[in-house]
Order: sequence, then C-alpha cells, then structure tokens
Amino acid sequence: MNTITLSHGSGGKASNELIKNLFFKYFSNEILNTAMDSGVFNLRDGFFAFTTDSFVVKPLFFNGGDIGKLAVCGTVNDLAVSGASPKYLTCAFIIEEGFSLDELEAIVKSMAYWADKAGVKIISGDTKVVGKGESDGVFINTSGIGEIIKGVSLGIDKINIGDKVIVTGTMGDHGFSILSKRKGLTFETTLASDSAPLNKMLENVLKNVKGVKFMRDPTRGGLASTLNEVVTDKSGILIKEEKIPISDSVRGISELLGMDPLYMANEGKAVIIASSDTAPKIVELLRENEYGKNACIVGEVTANYKNKVCIETIIGTVRILDMPQGEIVPRIC
Amino acid sequence: MNTITLSHGSGGKASNELIKNLFFKYFSNEILNTAMDSGVFNLRDGFFAFTTDSFVVKPLFFNGGDIGKLAVCGTVNDLAVSGASPKYLTCAFIIEEGFSLDELEAIVKSMAYWADKAGVKIISGDTKVVGKGESDGVFINTSGIGEIIKGVSLGIDKINIGDKVIVTGTMGDHGFSILSKRKGLTFETTLASDSAPLNKMLENVLKNVKGVKFMRDPTRGGLASTLNEVVTDKSGILIKEEKIPISDSVRGISELLGMDPLYMANEGKAVIIASSDTAPKIVELLRENEYGKNACIVGEVTANYKNKVCIETIIGTVRILDMPQGEIVPRIC
Repeated sequence: MNTITLSHGSGGKASNELIKNLFFKYFSNEILNTAMDSGVFNLRDGFFAFTTDSFVVKPLFFNGGDIGKLAVCGTVNDLAVSGASPKYLTCAFIIEEGFSLDELEAIVKSMAYWADKAGVKIISGDTKVVGKGESDGVFINTSGIGEIIKGVSLGIDKINIGDKVIVTGTMGDHGFSILSKRKGLTFETTLASDSAPLNKMLENVLKNVKGVKFMRDPTRGGLASTLNEVVTDKSGILIKEEKIPISDSVRGISELLGMDPLYMANEGKAVIIASSDTAPKIVELLRENEYGKNACIVGEVTANYKNKVCIETIIGTVRILDMPQGEIVPRIC
Repeated sequence: MNTITLSHGSGGKASNELIKNLFFKYFSNEILNTAMDSGVFNLRDGFFAFTTDSFVVKPLFFNGGDIGKLAVCGTVNDLAVSGASPKYLTCAFIIEEGFSLDELEAIVKSMAYWADKAGVKIISGDTKVVGKGESDGVFINTSGIGEIIKGVSLGIDKINIGDKVIVTGTMGDHGFSILSKRKGLTFETTLASDSAPLNKMLENVLKNVKGVKFMRDPTRGGLASTLNEVVTDKSGILIKEEKIPISDSVRGISELLGMDPLYMANEGKAVIIASSDTAPKIVELLRENEYGKNACIVGEVTANYKNKVCIETIIGTVRILDMPQGEIVPRIC
C-alpha cells in the first residue's frame, strides 16, 4: 500500500502504524515518544509566545522548499518576530485519500530537518484523512510555543517617529517562485523561495541591541501589507524604492508579469522597526547571518504621512503604497 | 458580500476586515487584541501540556453541536486527559471559497461560547482560503496549552495489574449522531453528540483523589481503540459488557445498523484508569458533574490477557475486542 487511505485517519490499526512508522520515526524525541494526548514539558517563570499557522501552498514542492519546510519555518518565524526563542511545535495533517505515501514521507523528512536546524522539537500531532476530492493533497497546521527573550517587549505601541524600517533581505522571492512554478515559467531557473528559519538571526539581534520596537515577517501581502498594519493615526512610514533589495530574478519576472514585488509574499524575511541610533548596528548583526546578507534600512517612521505607507520612487516622486485589495496569488503558503 | 472569497485569505484589506469584524469580535481578550504574530502571556514555573487537533467533521452542524464546539472541546479535552488545566487555545481556519459568512459566524460564536464555558482564551489565529472544490466547507485546527495540575503525573507506565477502568458516561453517542445525520436517519430524534468540555470535571477528580494513573478521551475508534492503546506485554484489560453505559438511542441505532458502540467515537467522555481503592471515590466525584452522571467502573487491568482487550459478554463468554481495522465512519471529528 503506497497511498493514504481513509483507514489511516480512523484512529485504528492503520492510523497507529502511520504514526509509528512515519511521524515518530522522523520527529522522535523524548516528549513526543510518550505518545500521550499532549506533549508535556517543564518551563521556568517567564513570558511565552503561542502561535498557529495552516499551510495550503500549491504546489507542495517548489524551488527552495516544500510545504513541510514552510510549515516549520513559518511558525518558527512567527514566534521569532514576537521576540521569542521557539521551543516546541505541534503539527497536524489533513490528508486527501489517495495521497502518495512517498510524498508524505518527503514532507515529514523536510519538517524534521528544518525543525532540527531551527532548534525546535515537534512534540504532538494529529492526522485526519478526508475523502478523494474533499481536500487538495495535504494541508499542514503547525502551532508553536516560544520563550520571550528576557527584557524584550515588542509592539506597535512601542514605535516612535524617527524610527528606522529595516528589511532583512530581498523582497518577493517566495511569491514569485510559487507563481512561476504554478504557471510553468521554467526559464526562471534562478528564482527560488526564500523560506528559512530566522530565529537564530533575530535572537542574536535582540540579545545584543536594545532598540528593536517591532518585528513582523512580511508573508501574504508582502512588505506593503506588513507596513500598512503598523501605521497609525499619529504616524506613517516612508520607504525609499532605491533602498529596497530585490533580486535580479524577481525584478525580471515582476516586470514580465507586471506585478509589484512589494506585494509578494516572503517566507524567510523580517521587517524590523528600531530606534534610529541602533538601526545601523542591527543591520551589521543581520548581515553576519546567512539569511541576512542583504539586510538594509529602507525607510523610516514619519509624522508627515499619518496612517499611510508612502514610497519615494527612484525618480523622486512620492506615492501611496496601499493595503492590497483582492487576491494576488492564492495558496502562496 | 455574504460568502468567503479568495481575498479573505490574501493578507490584505479583506483579510483584516474579516479578522476584525468576526474573529476579534467574538474571541476578544487582552492577549488576542494586541494583534501580534503570537499571543504572549506569563507563566510560572511548572509543567505544561501542548496539543493540537484538526477538525474536518461532516456535516458541520449536527444534533448536540457543530464543528466549532468540537474544535474547542476536543483540544480542551486532550489537555484535560493529560492532567492539565487548559489555559490558551489558538485556532486556524481553512475555508473554501464561497463558504457562507453566516455559517462561519455561527461557528465562531459557538467556539467563543464553549471557550468561555471551558475557561480558556483563544489568543492567536490564522485564516487560509482555498479555491472552490479545493477543500470541503471549513476545516478548523485548534492547538492548546494547559498547566499540569500540581503533583499529577499520568502515563501508560503508571498502570498496574488490578487497576480499575472507569468510563465517564455512555459510549458511542457522537459517532452515531454524525452517522445518523449523514444518512438522514431523522427518526432518531433523541440521538445527540456528547461533545462537551471535560476539564472542570477531570480537574476536580485530580485535585481530590491521588490514584489516577492514566486518562484518554475515546474519540476516533471509540473505547475499543483507546483500551487497545493501553495494553502491554505485561497486562491486558477485561471489561464487562453489562457494565458499559449505553443510551437507549445508541442501542437502538447500533442494532439497526449492526455497528458496535464500543468502536464509535465519543467527544465528551473520558476513560480513566485508577487504583482499585480510589476508583469508587472517583466515580462518586464524576457523578456530581453534569457530564459524568453515568460514570462507572467497567473493567480492570489484568495479567490474564496480556496485550489484549477482552470483553465478558452478558451471557458470560469472553471475546477479544480488537483494535479496529479499516475506516468505520470517516470525518467523525
């Protein structure tokens, strides 16, 4: 038997074999292996972050990653941008009847690899199987708990006029990578998803610099969405087009398709808002990490454009960068 | 606009409106309302339980509950049977394009109601929208964190020969309720899902009696599956048919369909294995609670049938109650 059947989701013999031979094999750790209804662990006094994300990306495998890598890194990054050091993940699969067991194994292996790279343990899980045509391949939910780094407290309310806006690397890689794979644009061989676990890079910043006010990973809706979530009645953001790092491949495909990289999803990047005096040091620390080589300051928080995100173009004009409306690329993550 | 569109999952304007007008409206609490990538909270030194469950039940609304109630109670119960007091939940929706916003609101309202009843807060969430025909209505994942009750340590390894097996109420109600609704067996008007949050009832037991060794909620695969997960090379379980509480409605439909209630899912019941001296007191405490009125001792752990679950029938014969094979009723939860 090399495909998933309804009995794999029954809670009976086939379920138990799948759990033992696949999930426990790759995710094995002392907490998961107790096979209790919950993973149980010890925590010391402190603040903790708890987050969840479901992944429905299509296709499941793409240049630079797969749904499993995305599911681990996405939740790790949500914890990391909250100022936390990620500790434990759960993972829950919804699988369509008839799905290939080999593909499922490849996804699980990828999750185990990236969980290990990020330094997190998968300690509890769930598997549901739905009938043929009732879902689309596989959907994965990961939830995660992290320990807030001592002394760190981030939030939109911490942001002040004059703070700098930093991005940790090039914009739009994930979105265009998925889109090009889906459209069969195979000439774009250098286009790859940026999916990556950012926790170690961001922890290094938070432990060494005090000026970080807010962080978020610009996934669906891209940089434009994330910045629009940050502006308030008292302040706006002005970014400079010439400062925004964009890879040659993304620039090429974005011109070809007429789509703006600032609205496209990233899966291995963070936006950091920090005090202007500490921003250069933050960029320096980011650039030491493999995932932060193209980090730079792209703009600042300003009183001039309240409740708006504006972009100063290369030719010197200023235009509004609105919150995206409608769906640009569905099932991007 | 009264249905879900792809733009509700875009991370743009429509996403933010859905989050604000629906999820934040009903789930509102001081942690969720910070709208950060993770919910952040304080915990004291101790042991914690972390669990996850996806819900794909079909139909979404049924006698005795709906997918939202199930999603909250299911995760609350997974924490409770781990010996924890549930604290925080996350919830993640995968919604099919075209799904009714009214139905979504009914589900969210139900989740908010049952979270409140169980005393848990929903502090972080996620919404994905997939295209028409790419999923089936709505799937919900809930993950949860609970605080292990001081001094409590449960596990299969704690079970000894002579321990008693307790069930907290009638068996098979949820499974038959879903099945009858799906098959349109409307004559069974008294058949209802037992979906319920068991945390307060189980906490009361754990705080007042020391002898509890192991607990599990007999969901998919029913009591037969759960007990088969507990037996080892050193011990088996013998239950007595005449002791197992089964409602008249379930008995009726199980005879009609020729399906055994011991293999059918429960969503508001727990199996408790406890030392024989404390078992009567546990039953007494359970019966004080609205969800435990039919609690009773149904069997015991024995050296006679190693690695097997056996049932002594009403006429006095003993037969093996195997782990279920194949799928009995798909999409039961």
